[in-house]
Amino acid sequence: MKIVRVRNPEGIVYGAVEPEGIRLYKGSPLFEWESTEVVAPFDSVQLLSPVFPTKIVAIGRNYADHAAEMGSDVPDAPVIFLKPSTSVIGPGAPIVIPPDSTNVHHEAEFAVVIGSVARNVRAEDASSIVLGYTAANDVTARDLQRADGQWTRGKGFDTFCPLGPAIETEFDPLEGLDVLCRVNDEVRQAGKTTDLVFGVAELIEYVTRVMTMLPGDVILTGTPSGVGPIVDGDIVDVEVQSIGVLSNPVVKP
Amino acid sequence: MKIVRVRNPEGIVYGAVEPEGIRLYKGSPLFEWESTEVVAPFDSVQLLSPVFPTKIVAIGRNYADHAAEMGSDVPDAPVIFLKPSTSVIGPGAPIVIPPDSTNVHHEAEFAVVIGSVARNVRAEDASSIVLGYTAANDVTARDLQRADGQWTRGKGFDTFCPLGPAIETEFDPLEGLDVLCRVNDEVRQAGKTTDLVFGVAELIEYVTRVMTMLPGDVILTGTPSGVGPIVDGDIVDVEVQSIGVLSNPVVKP
Repeated sequence: MKIVRVRNPEGIVYGAVEPEGIRLYKGSPLFEWESTEVVAPFDSVQLLSPVFPTKIVAIGRNYADHAAEMGSDVPDAPVIFLKPSTSVIGPGAPIVIPPDSTNVHHEAEFAVVIGSVARNVRAEDASSIVLGYTAANDVTARDLQRADGQWTRGKGFDTFCPLGPAIETEFDPLEGLDVLCRVNDEVRQAGKTTDLVFGVAELIEYVTRVMTMLPGDVILTGTPSGVGPIVDGDIVDVEVQSIGVLSNPVVKP
Repeated sequence: MKIVRVRNPEGIVYGAVEPEGIRLYKGSPLFEWESTEVVAPFDSVQLLSPVFPTKIVAIGRNYADHAAEMGSDVPDAPVIFLKPSTSVIGPGAPIVIPPDSTNVHHEAEFAVVIGSVARNVRAEDASSIVLGYTAANDVTARDLQRADGQWTRGKGFDTFCPLGPAIETEFDPLEGLDVLCRVNDEVRQAGKTTDLVFGVAELIEYVTRVMTMLPGDVILTGTPSGVGPIVDGDIVDVEVQSIGVLSNPVVKP
């Protein structure tokens, strides 16, 4: 099932993708929801980020080829950092280049959406607390990330976390699905979920050993090699195979 | 005015400290609230963290004497990092030492509670978006902070962000008020708000240039020198003059 969150003339609701349109639901897949009789045509609704997380835990250097291009070794344990919830935008919304950076990069990632309150979850039980998977762009002001040491500012600007377009609940990250980034239709990043240094189950065990994850919270699993600059006027697509394409324009006001 | 959030037999409500007890309110000071006729005796309610923020932005090395004890220079610009909202606890709740650390430290801080949606706020307008000030303990697993490079894990465990006991709305951080930490009644940290390298107004300008702050979000302004270990059985008090004492026991399960 592909879960989406949409704005329609009546407000913001959850839905599921069907061949003819979006089946609208009452409630939330994070708690309780129920399908309605309404199937909205695709062009009648605006897709939003499929969740609005209380927190986004992201993983650094989790593909060997990306660690190498950053001049780093693969770490012995996951490197975790947080992106603020205010950085989240949905499909189609603009990524805004801040005046303080001259080197903003795309980072295509596949992302785990947590479905229940999760604390000290063992790797073997990890799938039980996952709602599904989506695509993400861990947009990064590379110059500020390097200057600060801590990555919060470089990765924390408003609009620096596009999420979507949908949460696929049937996704199996062990299948080796493609994680792609295209800028203006040119492929810049092409990884596979099987190339992750630390897999989804290990990441869930590691993160929930530190902090309780809440329904709707998101783990960004890291980016493959090929990161590079995006500038005013670009269109950035992050595609995760079997999930969909997350497309965002880039603007510099 | 001293704003508190309390649990009483009817649920969780906001209140204001009066000589005879806590005046209970309807609603929230972050949006709309209204006083009631009820004044609850102090011993009839349990104090909670005065807000439950969507994000906590913290500042590293913002007192020169603490930067020196960490072997660091004072930075040219504020160093910002995030603590997850799931790390927040209220007065009296236990700080839990995680099994992964053998060196957990107290860090007494005074904290700014944001009162309205704030983006690109100039320093001269900063006071207009502040609801008030409270005390905080930026509890830190020093060993993990050093090992990871990124500070998220070392500072992000559940229970690692005691906040409270109250939000003082009349506080003037330019007055040079004391920021103290006592462990088992022994003074470990003693700073003054006037010793901040970057003051409250500058921090608000800097942070809101990056990310939108929402009502109830918190900025931890950094810790003075004297940080050190806390262990099972300790009682840690953070006191900010004119705000009150935030006291938490330490437990290692």
